[in-house]
Amino acid sequence: MFNAIRIVLIGTSHPGNVGAAARAMKTMGLSQLVLVDLATPLDERTTAMAAHADDVLAHMRSVATLDEAIGNCELVLGTSARSRYLDWPVLSPRDAARQVRQYLETTSLPDNAGRSVAILFGRERTGLTNEELQRCHAHIHIPTNPDYSSLNLASAVQLISYELRLALLAEAAAVGDHEALATAAEMQQLYTHLEQALTAIDFINPKAPKQVMGRLRRLLQRARCEQEEVNILRGLCSKILRNR
Amino acid sequence: MFNAIRIVLIGTSHPGNVGAAARAMKTMGLSQLVLVDLATPLDERTTAMAAHADDVLAHMRSVATLDEAIGNCELVLGTSARSRYLDWPVLSPRDAARQVRQYLETTSLPDNAGRSVAILFGRERTGLTNEELQRCHAHIHIPTNPDYSSLNLASAVQLISYELRLALLAEAAAVGDHEALATAAEMQQLYTHLEQALTAIDFINPKAPKQVMGRLRRLLQRARCEQEEVNILRGLCSKILRNR
Repeated sequence: MFNAIRIVLIGTSHPGNVGAAARAMKTMGLSQLVLVDLATPLDERTTAMAAHADDVLAHMRSVATLDEAIGNCELVLGTSARSRYLDWPVLSPRDAARQVRQYLETTSLPDNAGRSVAILFGRERTGLTNEELQRCHAHIHIPTNPDYSSLNLASAVQLISYELRLALLAEAAAVGDHEALATAAEMQQLYTHLEQALTAIDFINPKAPKQVMGRLRRLLQRARCEQEEVNILRGLCSKILRNR
Repeated sequence: MFNAIRIVLIGTSHPGNVGAAARAMKTMGLSQLVLVDLATPLDERTTAMAAHADDVLAHMRSVATLDEAIGNCELVLGTSARSRYLDWPVLSPRDAARQVRQYLETTSLPDNAGRSVAILFGRERTGLTNEELQRCHAHIHIPTNPDYSSLNLASAVQLISYELRLALLAEAAAVGDHEALATAAEMQQLYTHLEQALTAIDFINPKAPKQVMGRLRRLLQRARCEQEEVNILRGLCSKILRNR
C-alpha cells in the first residue's frame, strides 16, 4: 500500500527541500515523488539533503502540470496552512491517513493496478493556489501553533508521511494477527453474563445495576474487544458463578 | 504546560540543525531549547534555518554537561533509533506524549515552579551514548522504515513536538470532562490486585499467570482507564477476595 501513495510537490523553490522531502518520505517507507512546475532546477543541495534517499530521487518524476501528476488518482488530498478554506472538507493528518488506508483497502478492483492516492504540498511561501485546492477531495490541516504556522516543506512531508505509516502499519498489524473483533451480539452476551456474575457476588445491586454496568460497558466498548478477550472475560464470569 | 517541556540537543554537529529544530519546536508551540556540548559553533546557518523562530534561539541555553541541562527534571525521555536497547522501557512518540501530559497533570505540587520534562536528542550520526540513554526514564522510538531510519535531527524534533502538541491540546479538551486518567503506578497496583483475586479463585494458575494477565493488561492498557474505572475494578477484586 505504501507504493500507492504519491507525494506531489508543486512549485518548490529551494532545491534542498526536494532532497529533504525525499529523505523524509523514505524514513517512513514512501517512495513515489512527483514534482510539478519546479521553480528552481535541482542541484547538489538536493542530493546533499536527500542523505541516502537517492533511490527516491532516481524514481522521481518531474512534470509541468498538476493534471499530469494526478491524472490517474481517485483520491487527492491537499495540505493547507489555513484551517478552513473554500468551505472544503478539512481533515487532521491522522484522520487523513485513516481515510487513505480505508480507500486503499476498499479499492481492490481488478483494474486496481497503478491507482494512487496523491497528497499535494504547495510552494514554500504561498502554499497551494485556490485552483489547486479545488482539485482536492479534502484538505489536510496540520495543527500548528496559530502564532507561528511556518512549517518547513520537508517537515510537513515528514509529519504526513509519519501519520500515513502509522495508519498503514496499524492496518497491516490488524490484518496480520487475525484477531477477530467481537460482534455486537457477542458483547451483549458478555454484558448479560457479567451482570449475572457480579450480581451473584453482591458487587452490584440487582435493583440498580446501571451504575457499575454502565461504567464497565463504556470501558469495554472503548477498548473494542477481540473475541479471544471476550472468551477470557466470560470464562471469568463462569468461574465466579461456580465459586460462589 | 508547553513551557514545561524542554528540548535538549546533545552534541549537535550542524549549526543549521539547531535553527531547524527551533523552527520545528515553535510551529508546535514549544519554546524551551537547551544545547549540551555543541560540537560546532552556531553561525548564520542557524538563524537562516530558524526562519522566524528567533525568540526560541534568543531564550536558548547552551551548557557543557547533561547534568546542567536536566538537573531539575523529574521526567527525562531520550529518543533512540534502536527499537529496544539496554532493556529500558521503550515508548512510541504517541505514548510518550501521553505520559508527558499525565506527568504534567499530576505534578501540581506547590513547589512545581520550574519543574520540567526533558526530551533528549542525540548526535546526528551516532545518537545518544549508552550513558546518556541510562539517564532516561524511558526511550522514545520513532517507528521509521527499518531499511532506512535516517531521520534528520530537526525532523525528529518536529515529530515529537507534534505528538506533544496533540497530546497537550487533547488534554485541554478532556479536562472539560473531568475524567482523570489512571497513572502508570495506579495501573500497576490494579494488575497486582487483579492477579491476586484471579489466583484466589483459581482462574489463573499461579505458576503461569502470564497468559491471562497478559491479555487483560493488553485490553486495559488499550482502553486507557480512568481513575474511576480503576476504582471499580479494584472494588471488584476486593469483593472477589472477600467472597472466596
